[in-house]
Amino acid sequence: MRVTSFPLATLRDTPSEAEITSHKLLLKGGFIKRVSSGIYAYMPLMLRVIEKISLIIDKELNKIGCCKLLLPQLHPSELWEKSGRWEGYTEGEGIMFNLKDRQSRSFGLAPTHEEVITYVASEIVNSYKQLPFCFYQIQTKFRDEIRPRFGLMRGREFIMKDGYSFHSSKEDLINFYKIMERSYENIFTSCGLDTLGVEADSGAIGGAASKEFMVTANSGEDSILYTESGSYAANIEKAQSLPAKEITLKNFSKSLIHTPNQKSISDVCDSNNLDPTQIVKVIIYLAKFEDKSEVPLLVCIRGDQTINEVKVFNHLDKTRTSNLINLSIIESELEIKKNLNELPLGFIGPDLSDQIIKNNSHWEKKWLRLIDHSAYKLSNFISGANKVNYHKFFNSWENIGENLIKADFRNSKAGDFIDKNSSEILLEAKGIEIGHIFQLGQKYSKKLDAKFSNQKGLLENLWMGCYGIGVSRLAQAAIEQNHDENGICWPIQISPFQVILIATNFKDPLQNKLALKIYNELRENDIDVLFDDRDERAGVKFKDADLIGIPFRIIVGRDAVDNIVELISRKKEIQLKLSSKDLIEKFLKESKLM
Amino acid sequence: MRVTSFPLATLRDTPSEAEITSHKLLLKGGFIKRVSSGIYAYMPLMLRVIEKISLIIDKELNKIGCCKLLLPQLHPSELWEKSGRWEGYTEGEGIMFNLKDRQSRSFGLAPTHEEVITYVASEIVNSYKQLPFCFYQIQTKFRDEIRPRFGLMRGREFIMKDGYSFHSSKEDLINFYKIMERSYENIFTSCGLDTLGVEADSGAIGGAASKEFMVTANSGEDSILYTESGSYAANIEKAQSLPAKEITLKNFSKSLIHTPNQKSISDVCDSNNLDPTQIVKVIIYLAKFEDKSEVPLLVCIRGDQTINEVKVFNHLDKTRTSNLINLSIIESELEIKKNLNELPLGFIGPDLSDQIIKNNSHWEKKWLRLIDHSAYKLSNFISGANKVNYHKFFNSWENIGENLIKADFRNSKAGDFIDKNSSEILLEAKGIEIGHIFQLGQKYSKKLDAKFSNQKGLLENLWMGCYGIGVSRLAQAAIEQNHDENGICWPIQISPFQVILIATNFKDPLQNKLALKIYNELRENDIDVLFDDRDERAGVKFKDADLIGIPFRIIVGRDAVDNIVELISRKKEIQLKLSSKDLIEKFLKESKLM
Repeated sequence: MRVTSFPLATLRDTPSEAEITSHKLLLKGGFIKRVSSGIYAYMPLMLRVIEKISLIIDKELNKIGCCKLLLPQLHPSELWEKSGRWEGYTEGEGIMFNLKDRQSRSFGLAPTHEEVITYVASEIVNSYKQLPFCFYQIQTKFRDEIRPRFGLMRGREFIMKDGYSFHSSKEDLINFYKIMERSYENIFTSCGLDTLGVEADSGAIGGAASKEFMVTANSGEDSILYTESGSYAANIEKAQSLPAKEITLKNFSKSLIHTPNQKSISDVCDSNNLDPTQIVKVIIYLAKFEDKSEVPLLVCIRGDQTINEVKVFNHLDKTRTSNLINLSIIESELEIKKNLNELPLGFIGPDLSDQIIKNNSHWEKKWLRLIDHSAYKLSNFISGANKVNYHKFFNSWENIGENLIKADFRNSKAGDFIDKNSSEILLEAKGIEIGHIFQLGQKYSKKLDAKFSNQKGLLENLWMGCYGIGVSRLAQAAIEQNHDENGICWPIQISPFQVILIATNFKDPLQNKLALKIYNELRENDIDVLFDDRDERAGVKFKDADLIGIPFRIIVGRDAVDNIVELISRKKEIQLKLSSKDLIEKFLKESKLM
Repeated sequence: MRVTSFPLATLRDTPSEAEITSHKLLLKGGFIKRVSSGIYAYMPLMLRVIEKISLIIDKELNKIGCCKLLLPQLHPSELWEKSGRWEGYTEGEGIMFNLKDRQSRSFGLAPTHEEVITYVASEIVNSYKQLPFCFYQIQTKFRDEIRPRFGLMRGREFIMKDGYSFHSSKEDLINFYKIMERSYENIFTSCGLDTLGVEADSGAIGGAASKEFMVTANSGEDSILYTESGSYAANIEKAQSLPAKEITLKNFSKSLIHTPNQKSISDVCDSNNLDPTQIVKVIIYLAKFEDKSEVPLLVCIRGDQTINEVKVFNHLDKTRTSNLINLSIIESELEIKKNLNELPLGFIGPDLSDQIIKNNSHWEKKWLRLIDHSAYKLSNFISGANKVNYHKFFNSWENIGENLIKADFRNSKAGDFIDKNSSEILLEAKGIEIGHIFQLGQKYSKKLDAKFSNQKGLLENLWMGCYGIGVSRLAQAAIEQNHDENGICWPIQISPFQVILIATNFKDPLQNKLALKIYNELRENDIDVLFDDRDERAGVKFKDADLIGIPFRIIVGRDAVDNIVELISRKKEIQLKLSSKDLIEKFLKESKLM
C-alpha cells in the first residue's frame, strides 16, 4: 500500500484526552478517531491490525475444528427474558443498549450471544450424532459502559471473538475446554504477546469454571494474584488465600469503649492501642433482586482486610431464588433516612438490631448477616457498639445471633499464603483481560430449552462452553506491552505492515526508481509493505515510521546509485547496509527470527 | 472442512414463511436461521459466501487504490442533525433504529455512513495534497423496515460494502466515479453475476448523479425500464420518457356531466364513451416538512398514467427550504374531516378551491398544484367537477389558476418512446438492486463543514462520492439467478466450497482411505473442499449436495478399488470418471472454465 492512498493522519501533539500510553499512541499514530464517548473509527492502519489478529484466530480455531458464523447484533428481548438476563442487563446494570422498533418490540444491542446461539442450536441440533461442535464469530459488540475510557480498552463499541461449543456430556465439555485453553495460548503467542492465564470469576455469564487470559501491564484494570513458581494465578475477583495471622486480642478490660469521632479503623487503633486484625469492620449493603425484593446486608470482615463484592454478589445470586440485579453500599442519606431509624454510621457492630429497619420500609425487615472467615475466626474482637462514639468488646460470635452466614467474602492480597500447607505467598500484578473461557454447563440450554436426544434416546439439555477474545482490546494491549519513547513497536505478527519503504529523497529519479522496484519485488513476495511515497522530508517519514511502529524499515538513500539500501528494525537491533538484490532474502530471514 | 464439524441443518420441508425461491433455498439449505423479523443468523456455509464476496470486493477496490477501514455502528444524533437527516430518518420514515444511552444522549444505529465519514475526513484532511482518497468498509447495517421480507433481500440487519471518496474538484469526483463504475462491473462479473447498470434516483442519500446495479429477476422489487439496444436503462423511479399519444378530445357538448357513482377513470370512460387519455386524474397528498409545516398537494396526471411519488418527493425537497420528511396520500377519514370542508372524493378536479381547507387546520391554506406534463399537454380534457357525481369539461389550463407547477411527475412505462427523436421503445424488467453509486458533490461536506485548503490556499468544501454494495443481498440475488428444482447452483466464485467430496459408503475402508487421501490433496492444492464424512446414505448426501449447490462433486464409490472416482458438475454438464491421480489437474482445468 502507498501512504499517498490514504491520509496517514498522524498527530504532532499527544491528545490530552488519553490517559494511558497505548491510547495516546493509537490517537497520535492516526490508528483510531473518536466519534463519541467510547466509540471510535478504526482507520486503515488499525483495521489491518484487527484483520491480522482475526486471521490468527481463524487459523488456530479452524485447527481444532471450530466453524465461523455470524449472529445478529439486534436481539429480541424475548430470548434474554428466557435466560433471565434481560432485566439485569437493561434495568439493572444497564450495560445493554436497548431500543424499541417501529412495532414497539424491545431489542437489545448484543454485548454477548449466549441466548442467540443457544436458540440457534436448539433449532438445528436433534441428536448426539451432531455433537460436539463449536461455532464462533468475530463481530462488533456493544456495552453502555458507565465510564468508557482508555480508548479501545473499555469502549462502548468493540470487536470480540466469541465462540460457543456444544457437547453431549460434561466430560466432553471439560475435555474441549482444555483443548480451547491450549488454542488460546497458541493464539496469543502467535500474536506476539506475553499472557498469563488466571482463574477467574464467571460473572454475569455464569457457569462452573472460567479462566482469563491477561496481558500484564501497569495500566491494566484487573488485579492478578499469583505465585512466583507459577503454581497459582487468579484474578483478585476470584482469588482465595489465607490472610496474614491476626494479633490475638486478650480479654479486654472494658466492654464499652468511648471512641469519640474515631470512625475509621486506623483512628480506633491509634487511639486505643489496637491492631486492625483485632477489629471487625462492618459494611452495610442493599441487594436488589429481579423479583423486586430488596434485602439489607451487613457484611463483617477483619479490620485489615477488604470486602470482595464479587464474592458477595455471587453468594447472593446462588443462594436466593431470584436473580440479583444490583448490589450497592448503603450510603445515600436519603435512602438511610427513608428506611432506617438513626443509623450509627461509623460505629456499626455485627449485632446491629433488626429493629433499626423502619416498619414502613419496603426492604426486608431482617439484616442478612454475612461474615467473612477472617472475621469469624476471631474469638475476641472489637467492633462498633451501634452507638455513636462507642465501640465495644465482643468475646464470641455466638452471642451475636443466629443465621450468621460464614464464607469467603474477602479480597486476597499480595503477601497472603496460598493455603495452609504452602509457604508460597501471593504477588500482585495489574493485567488487561484479553480472553476469557467458560464452562457454561447447562445454564443456558435449560433456560432456553435446548435439547438433544442422547445415545439412550432420551432428551437431555446441551452442554455448553463459551470462549471470548477481546480483539480490539488485544490490539491495544499489544501496544501497552510493546512501545518505546518514539512510538509503537508492533509485534511483526499483527503489525499493519511488516515493513515500511522510504526513499529519503523521493524527487531523486534514481532513488525513486529503485524504491519502486523494491516495492514491487516485496509485493510479489507477499510481503506486507507500506511505501511512504509522500513528497515529505526524510525526517518526517522516519518519525512517522517510528510512531506507527512498523517492525522493519527499508531506506533507499544516496547509495541507491550503487543499489545499496538499508534494512533497519524498529528498535534498531538490526541495522544492515546491503545490496538491493539480497534484500528480500535477508528480510525474510530476519523477520522470521522476530 | 468436514460436514461433521458443524450441523449441516438442511431441512426436508420448504419453510412456509418464505415467499421467493432464493429465500426458500437459503432456509432449506441451512444457510440462514431466522432470529426475529428481518433478522437472521448467517450459518457457516452462508458466512463463507459472504467472505468470498468480500474478498472479491477487497481485491477490486484495492486495485483502484481504495483503503478499508471500519466505522462505528452507533452514531451520535448530533452528526445527523448537522446533515439535517436525523428527523427524517427517525421521526419521519423511521427507518433508523435509535436509542438513548445511560446519559440520555440519542444515538442512531447506522443505516449508512455519510455523516460519520465526512466528520472523520474533516478531522484528518487539511490539504489538497492528501486528496483524492477513497475509504470503504464491509459491515452490518440496520434499517427498521416497515415490511421486512424476502429473507436477506429486505432485512433489518444486513451486510453492506459502503465506500466514500474525497476529491479536490468536481472533475476529479466525476473521473473517479467512472473508475468506480468499471470497478463495480468487475466485482459483479467476478462474483459470477449478470447485472445491469441503470440510471437511478439518489433518494435520501442525495447528490447529482447516481447509478444502480441490478440483478434482473422476476422476484425483484425494482422496476427497470430499458431499450433493447442497451441505449437506455433506468429505474422506474428515475426513468423519463414520452407517454403514448392521447386521443384528442374534440369540443365537448356539455360542460357538466352527470357521472353517478363513476369514481374510477374506467367507470367514467365506459359510461361516457371517453378514453383515459382524455381525462385528468387528480390525487391529493400531504407533505410534511422538517420545520413542521404541512402542505396539501393536488397532483394532476393524464388518466392513463400513474404518479411517480419519488419525483414528487424530489421536486418538493429541492424547491422548499425545509427538508421533506414525509409524503402521503390524503385518505384517512379522520384527517379529511379535521382539515377539509366536504371533500368530493372521486370527483376532484384540478380547480379544487382553496376554500375547502378549513381555517382551523394547521395545513397551509393553499393547495400546491402540481401538473404532470402528460396532463398539461392536453388542451381539452375531462376531470372531476369538485361536486359529488359530476365531472366537467375543461377547455384550457389557463382558466384553472396561477401557480401551476408543471414538471415530470409520471411513471414511465413499457411501450413509451425514450424521446421525441427516437423510435426505440421501453421494455420493462424486474430487478434486485445490489449496488448503487452516487456523486454526492458537496452536500455533506457543506453541512458538516468538511474543508480542505486548495492549490490557491483557499478553504473549499470536499467533493464526495459514495458507493454501496448490498453484500448479503448480492448473495441471495445470486441464488435467484442460479438455481434449479433441486437447489442452489452457486457461481463457483462465491460458492461456500468449490467442491464437495462424497464417499458413497463411508464404512468401506477402501473408499474411506481414498476419500481421505483426496481430501488432503485438495486442501494441499488450496482447493476449497467440503468433505461429507457423515455416516449417512449416499442418497441423502447427494440430495444435500444438490441443495446447498456446490459447483463440483467428487464421488468415491465402488471403483475406489481401481482408484477411479467421478467428477460431476452441479448441473451435470460435466460427468467424468477418472483416475484419482488425474483428479486435481482435471478439476483445476474444469473449474477454471466455469
